[in-house]
Amino acid sequence: MLEGNAVVAQSGGPTAVINQSLVGVVERWRALAKGTIFGARHGVRGMIEDKFLDLTTTPMQTLELVAGTPSAALGSSRDKPDAAYCQKIIAALKSRDIRNYFYIGGNDSSDTCRIVNELATSSGYQMRSFHVPKTVDNDLMENDHTPGYASAARYVAMAFMGDNLDNASLPGIKINVVMGRHAGFLTGAAALMRQRPDDGPHLVYLPEVAFDLDRFVSDVDAMFKKHGRCQIAVSEGIQDADGTPIAAKITAGEKDAHGNVQLSGSGALGDMLAEYIKKKLTPVGGKPPRVRADTLGYPQRCWPDASKVDQREAREAGRFAVEQAHAGIASGSIAIQRVSTKPYASKMVRVELTDVAAKTRHMPPEFIEGHRDVSTKFIEWLMPLVGEMPGVGRL
Amino acid sequence: MLEGNAVVAQSGGPTAVINQSLVGVVERWRALAKGTIFGARHGVRGMIEDKFLDLTTTPMQTLELVAGTPSAALGSSRDKPDAAYCQKIIAALKSRDIRNYFYIGGNDSSDTCRIVNELATSSGYQMRSFHVPKTVDNDLMENDHTPGYASAARYVAMAFMGDNLDNASLPGIKINVVMGRHAGFLTGAAALMRQRPDDGPHLVYLPEVAFDLDRFVSDVDAMFKKHGRCQIAVSEGIQDADGTPIAAKITAGEKDAHGNVQLSGSGALGDMLAEYIKKKLTPVGGKPPRVRADTLGYPQRCWPDASKVDQREAREAGRFAVEQAHAGIASGSIAIQRVSTKPYASKMVRVELTDVAAKTRHMPPEFIEGHRDVSTKFIEWLMPLVGEMPGVGRL
Repeated sequence: MLEGNAVVAQSGGPTAVINQSLVGVVERWRALAKGTIFGARHGVRGMIEDKFLDLTTTPMQTLELVAGTPSAALGSSRDKPDAAYCQKIIAALKSRDIRNYFYIGGNDSSDTCRIVNELATSSGYQMRSFHVPKTVDNDLMENDHTPGYASAARYVAMAFMGDNLDNASLPGIKINVVMGRHAGFLTGAAALMRQRPDDGPHLVYLPEVAFDLDRFVSDVDAMFKKHGRCQIAVSEGIQDADGTPIAAKITAGEKDAHGNVQLSGSGALGDMLAEYIKKKLTPVGGKPPRVRADTLGYPQRCWPDASKVDQREAREAGRFAVEQAHAGIASGSIAIQRVSTKPYASKMVRVELTDVAAKTRHMPPEFIEGHRDVSTKFIEWLMPLVGEMPGVGRL
Repeated sequence: MLEGNAVVAQSGGPTAVINQSLVGVVERWRALAKGTIFGARHGVRGMIEDKFLDLTTTPMQTLELVAGTPSAALGSSRDKPDAAYCQKIIAALKSRDIRNYFYIGGNDSSDTCRIVNELATSSGYQMRSFHVPKTVDNDLMENDHTPGYASAARYVAMAFMGDNLDNASLPGIKINVVMGRHAGFLTGAAALMRQRPDDGPHLVYLPEVAFDLDRFVSDVDAMFKKHGRCQIAVSEGIQDADGTPIAAKITAGEKDAHGNVQLSGSGALGDMLAEYIKKKLTPVGGKPPRVRADTLGYPQRCWPDASKVDQREAREAGRFAVEQAHAGIASGSIAIQRVSTKPYASKMVRVELTDVAAKTRHMPPEFIEGHRDVSTKFIEWLMPLVGEMPGVGRL
């Protein structure tokens, strides 16, 4: 039984399928409950500012169009509520008799969900609280993979696929910086479409493996000598042996020395690595090699061509959260578990909020190959998630 | 009548459809001529290094797969041949009895084609020479638009569409730097999917309009106050009133002062503009606004999801070049002319090599609106070229 009303909200960085989860929650609520379902604008901020949208009667046609649209249709938020903020949330929920709380987001959001849930419980306010997973980084515990990841991985795989052909046609050294501050799952997707021994990416650097600049130069040198070119995937979150992010080191160091502002920019890591390579690499025929860096940026998380598998699972995760509440369960985080890889099948399960909240999942060792690649096992794991990919013709 | 053999080659920055033109040349040659058709590896370089591929009997199935693959399947080149280099080209062509020269590329390539053609003529070597247009910049004279442009425009329009929704969900100031050193056609494509008055891009800066940093700050300030956010399209080729590229000014200035290398990187322009905005903009509620820059990079020219119109026209341009040679015409550059916009129709024409060679087309004044936008006329002109676009749902 679903008593009272419900709220659904979206939080953190958007993805291509976060609206699928939103629509999954709304449609299942409307099927199973009698109360009103509110959408909070911009996550918890909309709750404390009383910015709610009534989604109880929104036409299904509108919802379907929203589901297929990237980014958070309700608006998102990066607010991290403290105790006072959470009290305001509880007050807002009480004032609307909201007894069901569905929060779509990453590990910070699951922690917010946990805190709100605990506050409600301790104040004697009966409410069901569910976290619906979302993150392109794929860094949530208990999940085989998270909604949003597969679509971002699809984008990264397609970008590297096209860029590899580009690099083969005009040979040089090309660095592409990929999202993922703590986990290398998205950077690893760069290798998905590698088909021939000379296909890029020839080097893949993950946050899970300590990054060393000198070793990087000799890696590039070796690949350049072997293939006459080198395509490189670098996670924005690569760090040295002490765990200090390389990007932060660049920014901090250069800021102190020159007060130079550009270095804190989004392109700084790729540009720095490119310049370092140019200076250190053995010139070929007296000429330094052609080196260029791209930072893939926001299209990774909001490109309007999502993975079909991702769309379906994100939708199902939203539905499943409502079904759990309907079954009388008080709280939890929804997680995707893999049933089989060939043929691909997955299922939704409920885990405890505390199993996911504010924790970070990393690439398991069996997904990593040496210090500069992903494993075949990783590719096999990823392949069924991204959907159909374009073919490649060669002469 | 098509006598002797033929060569086809690809030059300059790759596009998503340059292989369509290649296959168009090959298939039409095979239908109309008896001689061998060679593909030169890496443009003119393959010719002087005797790296040719016989395409006379390549299976059509392979060619079709190649046609749908982005980037130059034969390999490309940025070599700009001098007189001695050109003599070597002529010698290579003579040695294989190549009497038909099909060169796919941009305005530099059409100039190479012109020079090779003139050298052949002056040395009494009878050869037909045709330039097949290709450039994502759309900066070739005599063309309504060039093969490669529509697919790149499709990528830019989709990237801005997704990013606009992302920016609306987490409001801030977002700068996206778009390719196009001299012409703003590709940057203008950022505005294609703007549907509502508050949709981004809110500001569009083209190389054709003098860029002023102070005016830029006040533009952003005004838009940020109006919409609570601001999405900005900036051409990599923006220049000041004296015609000096802003990117070059940043690079040069900072290099002199600090010997600082990062600033010459691909992300430098966007990062510099972002930092400038952060420093100069009025803080809102004591906090500086959230500013971030992406540089769209190579996916613009090699994203493996081309415009269908672009694919068709690029193919046809290749075919038409062979048909012109078959009709007994000695030389020329193929150009796309628009027949009508609603319904969309285009045709191929032949123009003189000297009409295109080493010249640059800019955005016409009627495509530009004020100092920071494109016109409705531009949007109407562009719309039929990009193919079907994803729908957008909103709450």
